[in-house]
Parts: sequence; structure tokens; C-alpha cells
Amino acid sequence: MKHKFIELINDYMSHLYDDALSAELDAAMNYSLSAGGKRIRPVLLLTTLEMCGEKAASGLSAAAAIEMIHTYSLIHDDLPAMDDDDYRRGKLTNHRVYGEATAILAGDGLLTDSFYHVMSDETLTAEVKVELVRIISRAAGSRGMVGGQMLDMAAEHRQLTRAEMEEVHLHKTGDLIRACFLCAGVIARLDDTAMAQLHDLGTKVGLLFQIKDDILDVEGSLEEMGKTAGSDAQNDKATYVTLLGLPAAKQAMTDVYHEAVELVSQLTENCTSMMELLDYIVARTK
Amino acid sequence: MKHKFIELINDYMSHLYDDALSAELDAAMNYSLSAGGKRIRPVLLLTTLEMCGEKAASGLSAAAAIEMIHTYSLIHDDLPAMDDDDYRRGKLTNHRVYGEATAILAGDGLLTDSFYHVMSDETLTAEVKVELVRIISRAAGSRGMVGGQMLDMAAEHRQLTRAEMEEVHLHKTGDLIRACFLCAGVIARLDDTAMAQLHDLGTKVGLLFQIKDDILDVEGSLEEMGKTAGSDAQNDKATYVTLLGLPAAKQAMTDVYHEAVELVSQLTENCTSMMELLDYIVARTK
Repeated sequence: MKHKFIELINDYMSHLYDDALSAELDAAMNYSLSAGGKRIRPVLLLTTLEMCGEKAASGLSAAAAIEMIHTYSLIHDDLPAMDDDDYRRGKLTNHRVYGEATAILAGDGLLTDSFYHVMSDETLTAEVKVELVRIISRAAGSRGMVGGQMLDMAAEHRQLTRAEMEEVHLHKTGDLIRACFLCAGVIARLDDTAMAQLHDLGTKVGLLFQIKDDILDVEGSLEEMGKTAGSDAQNDKATYVTLLGLPAAKQAMTDVYHEAVELVSQLTENCTSMMELLDYIVARTK
Repeated sequence: MKHKFIELINDYMSHLYDDALSAELDAAMNYSLSAGGKRIRPVLLLTTLEMCGEKAASGLSAAAAIEMIHTYSLIHDDLPAMDDDDYRRGKLTNHRVYGEATAILAGDGLLTDSFYHVMSDETLTAEVKVELVRIISRAAGSRGMVGGQMLDMAAEHRQLTRAEMEEVHLHKTGDLIRACFLCAGVIARLDDTAMAQLHDLGTKVGLLFQIKDDILDVEGSLEEMGKTAGSDAQNDKATYVTLLGLPAAKQAMTDVYHEAVELVSQLTENCTSMMELLDYIVARTK
């Protein structure tokens, strides 16, 4: 993705780690932080802020925290005891470069540091910081992403209903994506009505992102995806495509796209950037 | 340890996890949370609060967060890729009961939830919560406990100087113990001078705790320790005992004990409980 915010985010994130305690640990954390992630979550957060009439830069610490958490989750998901993946985004996975023990610690470090990072942002008030960490830690913890990952593991090699699969996705990927919208709303100090609208929009975008991911898993190439296409199907994973078939999955994506577009236009007239982002999510090839 | 705060802490912690998203994940987290930990960190935090003339109960959320983080670190340390331990406190380790993948996620969940837990405490102000999470996440992250764990791994099978070994311990175990003192000081709204004194005391107590641990590693029994005595020596780990010998390690512990006692008496006259706790740390048999 080429996006006006990417450089801002990458520049900001390149300064996250100075003065290492363990140079090896920092190298492992930085390896995955700079391994070519699409930065979709930070871009969503900053774009939502802009849509709310706020300066995008005010969301950089929260955006970086969410990207650090997303990155840690990939490092741990790739471990031999989890998905046992050798490649991620076309590069060797963290444990294949640094070893399992360091990869576990790199994930733990990124997760812990993400909260320190928000707390150290001197441009935000204490009330806003508390609300940001409350939202992010809820979305990432045992009631959010980590709980969703457990449900996903429990679901392998078992036939799920569409409702069950959607619950897995809602938590495994949806909660953290929705947190991007909610964090932006907190920084912009939106009222309860607008926050509820952002909550709905964030849920739709998480769903949109997941359906597209499931479609890419069967249609994407190794070159573009950086991992083997069809790996979900091979692993007997319940996805929109394996459950509904490819044409119905594409139709579901189109339906959710139109619902999200409708929600954006209800929220604000200042919506060009967000509309472009929704288009990108649907059109992306990796 | 029998201590007046233990029941308060255990009762509080038994209500941490209601309404599970994944029952299996909650079972794994609760297994390690209730696996017979000494609760030394929560007791230190609440005792420091009492010493500062504050109600101990005001520190329960921070105390629970630190115990959750301590617990997650043990789960991850015990993993096959790390220390590969089958037993902890005389019980099977988390991954030996729930499997590696679940143990990784249980650790991730406890760590993430610990911050959510502090943020959800409605008895604390936003300013205090921000400071608590800043202290705890710094002490637990890549510049604290996780960084110390990396240094410790890098030090295996290599001869360390005493200064190098102390740096490992300072971060691996010391930072989180010191955080108990600092969190209490923040909740009690101490001034900078008193915070600096708590900082020194916390550092000494962390050191005291570690020297005693190293001594117990060679003197403790499997029955009392719940793990094999002498395992550090077998693993070629640099400890106070392996570097200084047992008599000098005991002398070092006595010296640090007296320094800590002196610091406590400088801080307050209301110091009986803290003095008893220092005595316990030195006298404990597990």
C-alpha cells in the first residue's frame, strides 16, 4: 500500500527503540516491526482521526502501540507450537532467524512496551491515555485477540457454523481493528453517539478485512502474499471461502463493503480518505 | 508464607476472571495464577502502602497486575524453548497440562489483561493509573524483566563477572520487585524524596530476594522448592553461590538485609510489617 501516512508511521516507529538493554532482543523486535507490514491498523487509526477533524499525528503513539501488538501476535502465531510457519510476508519468521526463545521474548517485549509507549506520550491527557490502554488491552487480551486465537485453535479440524466462524474472526482479528477506530474517537473526544457509530464501523471494517484475507488465501500467489496460498484450506480451517464457497464469499464482502460505506457517510462528509481506504482493503492483492 | 494480606489478595484474584471468551484459556490462566505462588510481590506492595499510612486495599489492582505479570513470565520461562521445566512449585508446569500453544496464549493473556485490570480500577484517578502502568510496563518490558531474561539466556555457559550477574538479576527479577514499592508510593502520592528512598529500598529487596533464591537453589529440597535443587549449578548458571561460594553469598545476603533494614527505618517509624517481611525473605525455605 502506498499511503500518505505510511512514511509518517514508519518514521515514528523507527525511533521506538533506542538505548537497548539487550541488543539481540531489540534486533529481534525491530526485525519483525520492519518486516514489510502493511501498517493497515495505524493507517486506519490516523485516517479515522482525520475524518473526525483531528490532526493525524495525535494518534501516533496509539497507532504504534497497536502495530506493536499486531506484530507480537504474528511472532507468537508463527512459533512451532502454534502455526509453525517459516515465512511471513516473504521473509523468514522471527524464530527462524533468532530462535524460539528469543522470538517468545521479542513478542513479550513488544506487547509490554506498547503500553509503556502510550503512557509516555506527553501530548495526551491522563484521561485519554487511560481510555486508550483500556480499549487496546481489552481488544488484545483474553477477551479479545488472544481469546479469539484460542477459539481458532479449538476450531481446527472441526466443522464450524458460519456464526461460530464469525465469532472467532470477530475476536481474533476484528477486536484490534475496531480498537483503531475507538482509539481515534477517544483522542478526538467524540460523544457517545459518534463512538457507537465508530464501534459499528470498526466492526464492519474488521469483517471486511477478514473476508478479503480468506479470499486472498485461495486467490493470492506466494510472490504477493509471502506465504503459501491455500494454506487455510490445507489446514482444514473454517474460512468464509471454505464455508460459503468463493462466489458467496465475494458477495458477502461486497455486502459488508456497502454497509461500511453507508456508515462512513452517516458519520461525516469529510470522508474521502476513509472511502479510499475501504476501496484499498477490498482491492488489495496481499 | 502465612501473611495477613494473602487471603485478601487471593480473594481479590479469584474474581479476576469471570465471563470467559474461551473457557480453556481461562482454565490455563487460573491454573498458574492459583498454583501456590508465594504472593511476595503483592504482599510487598500492600505492606509498602501500609507503611506509607495508606489503606492496603487501594493497591489491590496494581498488586494483582504485578502478580499476573510474574505468573505469565513463569509460564513462558518454563516452555520447552526456554528452560523446559516440567514442574513449578511442585505442580506440573502450564504447558505440561495444557500444551505449548495454550501456555503461550495463557501467558500473553495474563500480560495483556494485567494492564486492562489496572485501567478498570474505578477507585484510582487517571493520573495514578497512568503512572502505575508506566512503572509496571517499564519494569516488565524490554528494558526490564524481558530484557533481563534475554541477558540471562545470553549468559548461559559463559563465565560472568559479579557485576554482569548483578545486572542480569537487577532486571530479570529486581525491576518488577522494585515496581511494587514504586506503585505503592504513587498510590500514596509520596514526594520525590520519599519516592527516591522507595526506589533504593525496592532495589535492595530485589537483590535480597535473588541472593536468597540462589542460596535456596543449592540448599532447598525438592519437596520444599517444588523443583530440583542445584538446577542452576547443573545448568552452568552464574549465581551468587556459583560465583562467590556459599559462605560469601550468605554474607552478601546479610549485608544487603542490614542495608534494607536501615533504609526502612529512615523512611518511617511505622515499619513493623515491612521489617517482618524482610525477615521472612531471608528466612524462607522455599
